[in-house]
Amino acid sequence: MADAATINISPMAVALPELQPLPGVTLGATAAGIRYRGRNDLVMAEFVPGTTVAGVFTRNRCPGAPVEWCRHALKGERARALVVNAGNANVFTGRAGLAAARATAEVAAALVGCKPRHVFLASTGVIGEQLPYQRLTDALPALHAELRPDRWEDAARGIMTTDTFPKGATRTAQIGDATVTINGFAKGSGMIAPDMATMLCFVATDAKIPSEALQKMLKRGVDSSFNRTTVDSDTSTSDTVLLFATGLAKHPEVPDDGGPMLKDFRAKLADLLLDLALQVVRDGEGAQKLIRIDVSGAVGRRSAQRVAMAVANSPLVKTAVAGEDANWGRIVMAVGKAGEPADRDRLSVAIGGTWMARDGGVVEGYDETPVVAHMKGRDVRIAVDLGLGNGEATAWTCDLTHGYIDINGSYRS
Amino acid sequence: MADAATINISPMAVALPELQPLPGVTLGATAAGIRYRGRNDLVMAEFVPGTTVAGVFTRNRCPGAPVEWCRHALKGERARALVVNAGNANVFTGRAGLAAARATAEVAAALVGCKPRHVFLASTGVIGEQLPYQRLTDALPALHAELRPDRWEDAARGIMTTDTFPKGATRTAQIGDATVTINGFAKGSGMIAPDMATMLCFVATDAKIPSEALQKMLKRGVDSSFNRTTVDSDTSTSDTVLLFATGLAKHPEVPDDGGPMLKDFRAKLADLLLDLALQVVRDGEGAQKLIRIDVSGAVGRRSAQRVAMAVANSPLVKTAVAGEDANWGRIVMAVGKAGEPADRDRLSVAIGGTWMARDGGVVEGYDETPVVAHMKGRDVRIAVDLGLGNGEATAWTCDLTHGYIDINGSYRS
Repeated sequence: MADAATINISPMAVALPELQPLPGVTLGATAAGIRYRGRNDLVMAEFVPGTTVAGVFTRNRCPGAPVEWCRHALKGERARALVVNAGNANVFTGRAGLAAARATAEVAAALVGCKPRHVFLASTGVIGEQLPYQRLTDALPALHAELRPDRWEDAARGIMTTDTFPKGATRTAQIGDATVTINGFAKGSGMIAPDMATMLCFVATDAKIPSEALQKMLKRGVDSSFNRTTVDSDTSTSDTVLLFATGLAKHPEVPDDGGPMLKDFRAKLADLLLDLALQVVRDGEGAQKLIRIDVSGAVGRRSAQRVAMAVANSPLVKTAVAGEDANWGRIVMAVGKAGEPADRDRLSVAIGGTWMARDGGVVEGYDETPVVAHMKGRDVRIAVDLGLGNGEATAWTCDLTHGYIDINGSYRS
Repeated sequence: MADAATINISPMAVALPELQPLPGVTLGATAAGIRYRGRNDLVMAEFVPGTTVAGVFTRNRCPGAPVEWCRHALKGERARALVVNAGNANVFTGRAGLAAARATAEVAAALVGCKPRHVFLASTGVIGEQLPYQRLTDALPALHAELRPDRWEDAARGIMTTDTFPKGATRTAQIGDATVTINGFAKGSGMIAPDMATMLCFVATDAKIPSEALQKMLKRGVDSSFNRTTVDSDTSTSDTVLLFATGLAKHPEVPDDGGPMLKDFRAKLADLLLDLALQVVRDGEGAQKLIRIDVSGAVGRRSAQRVAMAVANSPLVKTAVAGEDANWGRIVMAVGKAGEPADRDRLSVAIGGTWMARDGGVVEGYDETPVVAHMKGRDVRIAVDLGLGNGEATAWTCDLTHGYIDINGSYRS
């Protein structure tokens, strides 16, 4: 198992912004000794009564017990607590796994004074080992006693596994005349793929939003952020995004379907989710470069998305970027393998804004110099124009390096 | 560009068998100086008049000019010659690329005395650079003069690119009372994926088989060999399998639809194709281990195939095998991501014949020792039982190592 101390911080790490207290949320972290030594691995948050909740989960057919628990809890449309542990994913643990989830929720519910179904759970770490849940339930009372409104950083750090830096983001949004806050934190660095791309992401706001509108916004926000990013095409069994709205902000009532009143909130939420998703990609296992792929000229938006993800998932494109090789031939290959409508003789490819190939052939007098210079940087931009229609999409990934092999050839996750 | 001399021969390399002359086929190789120095890079074969032909090609939407040429030529159902070059794939080269293909076919046709459409072509190597086809056409007359029935090894070596060993196989089959021979050679080590898995594979037989029956058999054989293997999930723009039947063997006439008379031939052809496909996987870029994945208990055969390929394509499974880590959690993850019917609580996983997990949980008293010993070997066997139905399938892949990054982070292919 790779020791966190032996893994260097990603060269693309960004600093954790200061997350201000949010009316209706207290949180904290502690060391329950689930797997790691000398660090926090158990996080709890408590929400005021009346908090609404929305969630999006992995499409993996073998999800962890906490995902099953949350899917069921979500039907209640209300949340009072969140309990997250790092070090053990409680995945492929059968009925005992679900019992462990229930026991954890029951203890948290007793502390908060709510029904177990108002407690949301997430676990991340090793798969296939029974969660030593008594360490969680033993640690929860002291942790609950220390929940405070200003412990966002502790929470962001407490859920890390192979992450090399904590990930957080904050935004403010206008609803009517009121200003509301949105805080979020996330973890994830490997097993990041199209169908729900981070392992865990938790967002809270003081806005008062009906759960129906909340769910709709979250789904849309995840589709244009986490679902447009990939690290290694593998899909975790635990991917979870939860959004809690405490409702303590004073603003006009939001209708069930959201509507125009949420326009600014929707945009700011999407922006925050994309910020967190890109932090996850920046922390891709072994990643040295962030790659952005812009596809245009596709027959439609879905087609453009599939082409962008095919390029983002191609090991040959990702190793070429790692080697700073302006290899547009591999980009053409990846476009073709997407299986979407494409005409070789209308295809154009650019790296860093320099068009290398146009309409199916090398650009006359193409000079590699600016492309080579661009590829030496941390941010690599690839553009593909299919020349067929107006479909556009963007995807993000990271390069594939020796670091990925180092981490995944030894870490049992 | 990686120099062939700097890449070590795969530890899983197999010796090239001696391929005996085949009635109706002469072949040879020469150095045309397309990209490499000091080695053959141009291969030609000539077939007797009346030779029938079948072909299966990449499903990549941006195929190379030679693939387009062959698809068209295949409609003629007859072949007199094959010309293959290594070093330049003639892909994404627009109209000039097709003109280069045509010019090559015309020169070969003049030498053989046939129509250009009876000449089949394949190119492999760098994408997006114009093929210097005059080097081919200049070299063809001398090469044609030196074609001989016994130069199979020269041919197998002449088509190599990043391959670390030449790949060939031979079988005999019974048709009625007659014994016919099947010889084949192949190349490929990266860009190997489900939808047509080798870059190039050429097979010839002296059997007399109508092109309709030949095409049907080849399709079936490729489906159960090359299409069940993967190195890195990327799909080449040049993947080509061609099967030529010279018809010089004396056996009863085979009907257009093949029928029971071809039973033994069909089995031997499938066996030869699987042999070649596994040689390609054994030469996967950087591969240290051959991984076989057997899936059983799926709801159907297609479902089992998708699950097997999902496991085979998972970078996390492939890096775990590279690290000799008996990480069945990642196998469960990969099964779940296939999107096929699966019930976590009926799933069982074995490595090297030892069942580690049964019916959704760790086997009681599970002892890792034999599994750890098995994973230290070159051949790693993974078994997954879904516990749902009778669907079975097998897939093959190799591990993902530092060698893959070394080769693909520097070689422009």
